[in-house]
Amino acid sequence: MTIKTVAVVCGTHGNEITGVYLHKKWQKNQALIQRTSISTQLVHANPKAYTNNRRYIDQDLNRQFAKHDLENMALGGYEQSRAKVINQQLGPKGNSKTDLIIDLHTTTSQMGPTLLLPQKGAFYNQLAAYVSMQMPEVIVFCDEDDKANDEHKLLCTIGRYGVIVEVGPVPQSVLRHDVFEKSEKMTQLILDFVELYNNNQLPELPKTVAAYRYLKSLTLPVNEQGERIGMVHKHVQDNDFKPLQPGEPLFITFDGEVIPYQGDKTVYPAFVNEAAYYDNNLATSLMEKIELKVAR
Amino acid sequence: MTIKTVAVVCGTHGNEITGVYLHKKWQKNQALIQRTSISTQLVHANPKAYTNNRRYIDQDLNRQFAKHDLENMALGGYEQSRAKVINQQLGPKGNSKTDLIIDLHTTTSQMGPTLLLPQKGAFYNQLAAYVSMQMPEVIVFCDEDDKANDEHKLLCTIGRYGVIVEVGPVPQSVLRHDVFEKSEKMTQLILDFVELYNNNQLPELPKTVAAYRYLKSLTLPVNEQGERIGMVHKHVQDNDFKPLQPGEPLFITFDGEVIPYQGDKTVYPAFVNEAAYYDNNLATSLMEKIELKVAR
Repeated sequence: MTIKTVAVVCGTHGNEITGVYLHKKWQKNQALIQRTSISTQLVHANPKAYTNNRRYIDQDLNRQFAKHDLENMALGGYEQSRAKVINQQLGPKGNSKTDLIIDLHTTTSQMGPTLLLPQKGAFYNQLAAYVSMQMPEVIVFCDEDDKANDEHKLLCTIGRYGVIVEVGPVPQSVLRHDVFEKSEKMTQLILDFVELYNNNQLPELPKTVAAYRYLKSLTLPVNEQGERIGMVHKHVQDNDFKPLQPGEPLFITFDGEVIPYQGDKTVYPAFVNEAAYYDNNLATSLMEKIELKVAR
Repeated sequence: MTIKTVAVVCGTHGNEITGVYLHKKWQKNQALIQRTSISTQLVHANPKAYTNNRRYIDQDLNRQFAKHDLENMALGGYEQSRAKVINQQLGPKGNSKTDLIIDLHTTTSQMGPTLLLPQKGAFYNQLAAYVSMQMPEVIVFCDEDDKANDEHKLLCTIGRYGVIVEVGPVPQSVLRHDVFEKSEKMTQLILDFVELYNNNQLPELPKTVAAYRYLKSLTLPVNEQGERIGMVHKHVQDNDFKPLQPGEPLFITFDGEVIPYQGDKTVYPAFVNEAAYYDNNLATSLMEKIELKVAR
């Protein structure tokens, strides 16, 4: 089944401004995001948060797209309302008029150019293989919901397919030339892939593609009063997707005490010390290394 | 004249949180910031901005300390009021009860540990020489006001002496282990210096110390409607205090056009692409390289 309608979304988080400036560029030169077999639209997801130079006004918009939340009219915060509007515009979730959503994000973590896949499937694995082949520094990040896509809270899950382009490191509210370029290149490669996919012209892809799958998140250490007492150890800082072994330094308290990683197997941190996750006192995500099989 | 009273200030910018956590540490263990010849107090300059996780509520607090602004009762914004209170508590400017103010800041720019000196003088040059000798990676940043200290807008200028400890890179609202450590070490070295200075026990200092002096700021490129059309080129990004020659790439437009540096002599960028300076559309500061003479 071909991909006919694509939405490139920016500003889902108001202080991740790279996508907003890419939109300005593409609005001036629409040919850059068109391909012969698809129709591409640009959507600015949270203009109010952007104007206020904040991640969000009331709630994190990129956590409002579980189906039961979209259907719950009692949820009336700004982003809870905005999610319903976007679902009307691009979805509805489960029966979407948009075949592919590409949602542009940035991170303060040293994650490089990351392609986040919220669902499993042959389409995603071929996409990941193509983008990795063309841009070998891309990391493939699998974050499927265990239960069902209906439960998944990300904006991009309201499309038939959806992915996140997540590039870092860049501070919130900052434009970096390198991050701008990588975000643009990844988006172009995804659109190129769709065109080749639609026309049955994909090049020979590798049989497998290396990826990381989300396991769980770790919180920063707190005392009995719930006050933060430490931070991510420099052994882990900036080492996203590098192996972390049991017993290696993970946190350090402000008094200088090292807290080691207590797990029983090698993991790979991601979103290490991401600024936006301080709200929930999150320190890092932990990932496992996997291989995706690519269908011919 | 000895230094008797010292204030260590944090949270002047509400989203530069490293100093706030150092304060928490020192409040629990006051001995760390005491020395036999001085009395040290801790001051949280802008707790309201910190609680709101923003640089400021109404105005940048660290631009409110020119004497004529402190005396102007018509300026009634939150930070304009807060500045008057802090001037009462630590100053008054020009006749200060505080001999030395150490104001703790962070930057999103790749500036490493930077010691910012807002005034000229033998005391400052000896301090810079001592800190550089003990911590060679420290950069000395001179930002004296051309006219008079009365005109200087920084909080630390209300002390008899005042300095800024400015460490980066760290995104706003993030704690980094390395930045925490460097900020702590610099503060400790400044307090050590004061103790040695007071007791006439300074070690032999170098005759000169390398430093950079602020020349001017550059704005990001805009079109005739005042809209931003480009960003800092990756040739300059992360190259704070590295030489920039006339004709070298400085900006790049979103359409890919390189805008070279148009000056007529070698300069050294600082605060390159600092997140907080986007409000004023500032791209970078330009510095000249100088040598400070150290009196015996």
